[in-house]
Amino acid sequence: MKKTGKCILVCAGDMGEEEILYKEGDFLIAVDGGLKHLARRGLVPDYILGDFDSLGEEDLPLLEAFREKHPGGVTTLPVEKDDTDTLAAARLGLERGFSRFVIYGGLGGKRIDHTLANIQTLVFLKKQGASALLTGGGTDLFVLSGESVTFERGFEGTFSLFALDPEVRGVAIRGMKYPLENGTLISSFPLGVSNHISPESQGSVSVGEGMALAVLVRERNCSN
Amino acid sequence: MKKTGKCILVCAGDMGEEEILYKEGDFLIAVDGGLKHLARRGLVPDYILGDFDSLGEEDLPLLEAFREKHPGGVTTLPVEKDDTDTLAAARLGLERGFSRFVIYGGLGGKRIDHTLANIQTLVFLKKQGASALLTGGGTDLFVLSGESVTFERGFEGTFSLFALDPEVRGVAIRGMKYPLENGTLISSFPLGVSNHISPESQGSVSVGEGMALAVLVRERNCSN
Repeated sequence: MKKTGKCILVCAGDMGEEEILYKEGDFLIAVDGGLKHLARRGLVPDYILGDFDSLGEEDLPLLEAFREKHPGGVTTLPVEKDDTDTLAAARLGLERGFSRFVIYGGLGGKRIDHTLANIQTLVFLKKQGASALLTGGGTDLFVLSGESVTFERGFEGTFSLFALDPEVRGVAIRGMKYPLENGTLISSFPLGVSNHISPESQGSVSVGEGMALAVLVRERNCSN
Repeated sequence: MKKTGKCILVCAGDMGEEEILYKEGDFLIAVDGGLKHLARRGLVPDYILGDFDSLGEEDLPLLEAFREKHPGGVTTLPVEKDDTDTLAAARLGLERGFSRFVIYGGLGGKRIDHTLANIQTLVFLKKQGASALLTGGGTDLFVLSGESVTFERGFEGTFSLFALDPEVRGVAIRGMKYPLENGTLISSFPLGVSNHISPESQGSVSVGEGMALAVLVRERNCSN
């Protein structure tokens, strides 16, 4: 049975003071050290999952308190495993019937390997028929395939689209500085990088065949 | 004619105090705002290329001084263009006969779109038969396809390998915590993330068919 709420994964990466947008009916998973982000915001997760190798000593009492109250709500993953903690959390959300995912704390800053692994999780979720957003620091990443998205009016920033397959066909970019109709993206050529969306226009993007990664960067982050 | 030196691209992204390793015979290109990184290190580029939209007012005299001395050594690119500045610099290096590239200042920190565009430049260069390294802050990225690499002994950190094609076959990972023989990577599954290389072992990786992105993170950067 499909759930109407979102599955929210909160990972251990840097989050600063960023707000976690949570609504009644959402399923909130603390992914490993992501528990500390929830604790600092006074949010109680519905589930905790991880190998807990990135949890600080000061965060362990949080984990123990949760484990006591919800003995079935904690999964300790082995440190040595094929899935990343985030992918394991994505699988859990799918099993629970969720088809919309938001990942916080998953843009690794200096840990580009973590960011790339989380982009793979976006691809994994898309292949399972779910939609997923990887968000942090004014940057949103999501995968598009055989679909169109229209951005909210008033958004100002840059939009980039990267091919995740060797070829991505039927690409249309509208309402931006550099429009494109029926374009083809390839993975070795950065067509569609840093397209500007002004607050007066309403940007939209369509992707036909193949998977593409969309990256939205809000204006305040656009200076290098 | 193949050149024996390297083509070094210095981009505008954050570099901190990082050293630029330059040898006689290398071809040093300042890519747009990357000029300021060279100036701060007392290095004079062989070529300057960019739309100069990310160059600060205080850096413009540098550009003018260089332009006066080397009138043929500056290319001003249009702000509106298909290639990124970095890709244009890569093309220039290829035209000059270089087959080895190192990109500094190209790991965008918060600008994930820049990082991803530069990863595409690595793919572009590999497809042209060149090797390329994207390096910064203790992290090295490079593309592997139909080849083997052995890391220097004494290296400590993590190694990750991501599929850049839908399937990457014939993957062998040796001398690391989680070895792999004749493995297949797919782009939706983060197999091979954060494998540990200890200083006593000598890590190596082979990739058969398809392209994979290797990410090496030095130990000092491994905490989140």
